[in-house]
Formats: sequence, structure tokens, C-alpha cells
Amino acid sequence: MGSLAAMEFVDNTLKLIDQRQLPNKFSFFVCKTWQDCEYAIKDMVVRGAPAIGAAAAYGAVLAAMQYKNHSGVDFVNLMHNAMASLSKARPTAVNLNWAINRMLNVFDSLDWTKLEEAGNILKQEADSLHNEDIEKSKKLSLFGADLIADGARILTHCNTGSLAVPGPGTALGMIKAAYDCGKKLSVFADETRPRLQGARLTAWELLTEGIPCTLIADSVASCLMRDGKVDLVVVGADRIAANGDTANKIGTFALSLAAAHFRIPFYVAAPLSTIDPGCATGNQIKIEERPSTEVTMLDGIKLAPDGINVYNPAFDVSPAENISAIITEKGILRPPFSESIANVLGKNK
Amino acid sequence: MGSLAAMEFVDNTLKLIDQRQLPNKFSFFVCKTWQDCEYAIKDMVVRGAPAIGAAAAYGAVLAAMQYKNHSGVDFVNLMHNAMASLSKARPTAVNLNWAINRMLNVFDSLDWTKLEEAGNILKQEADSLHNEDIEKSKKLSLFGADLIADGARILTHCNTGSLAVPGPGTALGMIKAAYDCGKKLSVFADETRPRLQGARLTAWELLTEGIPCTLIADSVASCLMRDGKVDLVVVGADRIAANGDTANKIGTFALSLAAAHFRIPFYVAAPLSTIDPGCATGNQIKIEERPSTEVTMLDGIKLAPDGINVYNPAFDVSPAENISAIITEKGILRPPFSESIANVLGKNK
Repeated sequence: MGSLAAMEFVDNTLKLIDQRQLPNKFSFFVCKTWQDCEYAIKDMVVRGAPAIGAAAAYGAVLAAMQYKNHSGVDFVNLMHNAMASLSKARPTAVNLNWAINRMLNVFDSLDWTKLEEAGNILKQEADSLHNEDIEKSKKLSLFGADLIADGARILTHCNTGSLAVPGPGTALGMIKAAYDCGKKLSVFADETRPRLQGARLTAWELLTEGIPCTLIADSVASCLMRDGKVDLVVVGADRIAANGDTANKIGTFALSLAAAHFRIPFYVAAPLSTIDPGCATGNQIKIEERPSTEVTMLDGIKLAPDGINVYNPAFDVSPAENISAIITEKGILRPPFSESIANVLGKNK
Repeated sequence: MGSLAAMEFVDNTLKLIDQRQLPNKFSFFVCKTWQDCEYAIKDMVVRGAPAIGAAAAYGAVLAAMQYKNHSGVDFVNLMHNAMASLSKARPTAVNLNWAINRMLNVFDSLDWTKLEEAGNILKQEADSLHNEDIEKSKKLSLFGADLIADGARILTHCNTGSLAVPGPGTALGMIKAAYDCGKKLSVFADETRPRLQGARLTAWELLTEGIPCTLIADSVASCLMRDGKVDLVVVGADRIAANGDTANKIGTFALSLAAAHFRIPFYVAAPLSTIDPGCATGNQIKIEERPSTEVTMLDGIKLAPDGINVYNPAFDVSPAENISAIITEKGILRPPFSESIANVLGKNK
């Protein structure tokens, strides 16, 4: 479990599994500059809220290496600019800001006489962040596994395993941990249009792990819930508001609505870094709109007529009332989330 | 409106627009035998419940032409066999049985001394059925247009226009009729995985007609409903049970659930031939499962790993309680549907 790693920092480069090519081709995208890293996040070479946070942290390391021959104010400005750009590469996942803020705090606390060591110091910080993420993912997965009964039929959306998260994953991490405990289970994986992370990545990851998996078109999910074929739904998150409202991959809201209607447990699995106490409710979460070609084209094939208007939001917000629990590395949060979230963040300061 | 025709019987062949190739290529699939016609229905060269009914009727004509040199019992057996196969080409749309039963009644009432004229007589019957379908579609569209207010923002699923229905269509027929009355309106078209009839056909048809249209991934629809961006939902149907439960393209149930939750009118548009009084409720409707490759492949491109298990139902059933009205060529049916359906079928006998 967790042998797959979305990223590795090696030879002064950030080596990413190119997730755009999976499952047809297993290849690497090597970032030599922070701009390469920014591109990789924007174009979804690497995706998944925790993974893009960690990738951006390494992006800051790449920036320090690129600019090492600049000195003083120049260097600081270039670094600030790079980190600001990295933190804006995608708008919805708060982990990106969280990771960059952590790197920025370390950078800004550097003695100006030590700026030439910035690369090494930031590398240590990014490694710490990455390793801590792996530990959080493992803990979260074990907490979550307790919620999965032997024989459970689980529905999941998008991809939340080792490609999306340093470590075993969030939602998929829970599933893998339950499976590793010896529980029999089966998974319905939504294909997750338009980028098909469920078909391309989750199905591939589960098949590799040997966990029984059935792939479905997204619109099949609510029928399975109605027909009593789903015992629980578990998804990841890109940003969780202070009241528990959760932004996640487009399609999650529809699942949360059906799950609430049919009284099926609906779980969100995410590290605490996904919680944004600065967002009171989901209304304040900015939802990324992505290019229309994600819907109208597929690997060069035209799926729709030229000139058609497209609305392509990458995420949606599931309201707290549809969520049964939020699984974090500090344990399982239950409603009312405004209280349980405030508690866990207070303790975690 | 309605200048597009999915099929034409010409030169003793059934000429179908090959809907598998749209919108990239406008080409025809010519059926010379009833087996060609059966294949065209199975492989979705032609699709849409009313259209496959009409196509199957012409399939019976092709059979009569093929077997014209056989006589007596031989001819009758071959014809019965062909019509039985045609009626089973796809299981969910009841229009297929309805059309074949109509052809069978004509055939079985033939004088044995007139069997050599069977081809011509069946051709007249198929033409009548086709022309009546066109008239029903026009009437239904006008009834339905009354339900669409000026400025309405309409959500639709799959394809229900002139490619799916002889005439202007069902759900799309209503939209086109309202637009032709001078009403301003805009349409959200679900792409409709896995076959993408929304992206490939509906978007193309609306673009051609000049009706404002925005294409969305299926999972976006319920977010639009929640956000107050949809005034009504209108879909077609493949089989309607006596109580109003409606089988339609997979994804329709999820829409009906969200519409009911957000109290948005949810309309089903279908000719009376789509109603199956032999099905008391939706539980008795057989749902077609189609090949896994519809989900895992797209025009030769692999979307999922080899060996993945797939569940690919082509349809789902929306319960009568989620449906605001059923629009037919005899007017608008309202709940309780068991009464309004019995009434209209009684009057229509």
C-alpha cells in the first residue's frame, strides 16, 4: 500500500508521474524550474489537493535554485513573485496556499546573510511537509478504515489515492487501509467527467491493488444508491469551509444529495490542511472554471460541434448537512461541524 | 423546424443518418436488409424511442422485399422471425414493440393469396406510422411549448429532436416550438455519458437551429438547479409505466431527484406509443445493459485500464412522484398519472 508516489525530488528536479497519460502510458514529467511546476499544476500533470500543495512546495525549492545567483532584494522579490504565482496556479484547493504559506514563512524568516542557503533550507522544509503529509495520510486512512464494515460496497468519485495525495490517499487511502485489514469490500468508481480521473486513475489504482472495482458513468451513481447497492460514499476534498461545507470535484454535490435522500453515510476524507477557517461557508469558496475543450475534446477527438458554448466548473460545494463525517489525521469529525472543526483546529494550533 | 429527418425510405432501402458519426461527419447508413436495420438499431446508428420504432417498421418492409420469392408458410415464418428479431433489437423502448406489433397485425391480416403484395402493403403501413409519428410530434411539441415561459432556462438530457423522433422531436420538439413562437430561451444540454448524445447530437441540433445552448458534463446539472439557474427540466422517454414511472436515458433519475428536491418542474415529453399499460410500475421495465466498451473506449481511445469491470445500464427509471407532467400528442397529463394515463389511453382506443 502506498508504494506509488506522485512525486519525487531528485537531482535538483521535481519528477512527477504524468497523470495526464495514465493508464495508457506511465511516464514522468520533470520540472527543472518553478514555471515547469506551475504548468504541471495548471495542466493537471499532478492533481489532487494535497499533491498539488506538496508539488508547489517543491516549486519554491526550484525557484530558489534558479535564482541562487541573484542576491539581496532581487532574490527576495523573485522568490516572492514565484511563490505568489505558484499559490495561484489553481484557485480552489486551499492546500496550495497552505503549502506556499508554510514555505513563505520559512523563507521570510531567513537571515539575509543566509539567503544563499535558501535552496537547501527550503528543500528541507518541502521534504518535511511532504513526509508529514504522508504520515497524515496514513493516520487518516486508519481512522477512516474503522468506518468501513466488512463486506461494504463503497461508492467513490474522482481520484484520491497515492496519485492525489502524498501517502496512501484520503478517500482511497481509507478504502485501501480497510482492505489491508482483511475486510472484504467492493468499490464503485465514478468515471468523473470531464477529466475521467475515476476511469483513468482510480480504476487503475484499485486494479493494481487487487481491490474489486466496478467503473460507472457518473450518472449511474444515484441509481445504485436508490437500489440499495451502496453502503457508504466516500470522497476527498479541495477546500472545507469552517462550517463543514466542502468543495470537491464536480459531481460530488449530486452524490451528496442522493446519499442524503437515501440516508446513506456520506464521508469526506481530507487532511486538516484542506480546512480553510477563513471561509465561513461554502459560498465563499472560489470555484475554478476550466477550459471548454475539457468537455468538447478528448485526446484530439471532437466530442461536440464547433462553436458550442460550455460551462465547465471543476468543483462544486456539498453542504455540511449532507455530510455524515469528515475524516482527518486527528480523528473523525462529526456534525455540527462548525464546532468539531473549531475544536480540532484549536487543539492543532 | 423539423427539416432534419433521421430516416427516409428510398429506392427500396432504408436510408438512415449515421448518428454514430455526428457531429464530425454527416453520412448515411443504408439498410438493404432487415438484418442491416436490426444492426443499425442495436449499434445506435439510429436511436431515440420513436425513431427506432419507425425504423423497425421499415425493417419489416425490407424483410418482405427480401423474402418475396418465398411463398406460403415459408414466407410467413421468415417474416415472423424477422419481425420478432427486430422487436428485440433493444429491450427498453416500448415503441419498438408497438411499431412491430402494428406491422404484424397488418401482415397477419393479409389474405394468403395476397402475400406477394405484402411488401407494398407493409410499406404503406410503415409510411402511415412514420407520417402519423411526425404529426404526433408536432402536436406534442405545441402542447409542450405552452409550458415554456418567455425567457425560460431549460435543462435537457440526451437527444430528443428530429434525430430521435420522426418530426420535430419530443423534449427538443417542445423547445423548438417555443422558440419558433418567438419566446426567448436558453438550454443547458447534458453531454449524456457514455454515448454523448447531448454533446454530439443535441448541441449540434440546437446550434443548427440557432437556439442558445450551453453544454455541460452530466454532473453539473444538479448544481445549476441548486443555484437557481434552471426554470424547468424536460426529457424524453423510452417506456412509461401505467403509473407514470418513466424509463429514459441513464442520468434522468438523478435529474428528477434534484428537480424534485429544488421544486423545479420536471417534464417528460413522449407520444402515447411510449406508454406501456402492460407495465404497472417502473419495476417491471427491463433496463438494457450495454457493452462496457461504451464506457472504457471512445473512438478507439482507451479511457480506462484493461480488465476493469464496468456496469453500463443504458436507462434508468424516474418515479412518477418526481414528474410534474407528461406531454403527449393528446395533451398534457398531470398527476395522479395512473388516472390521467388510463383516461387518455381509454379515449384513444
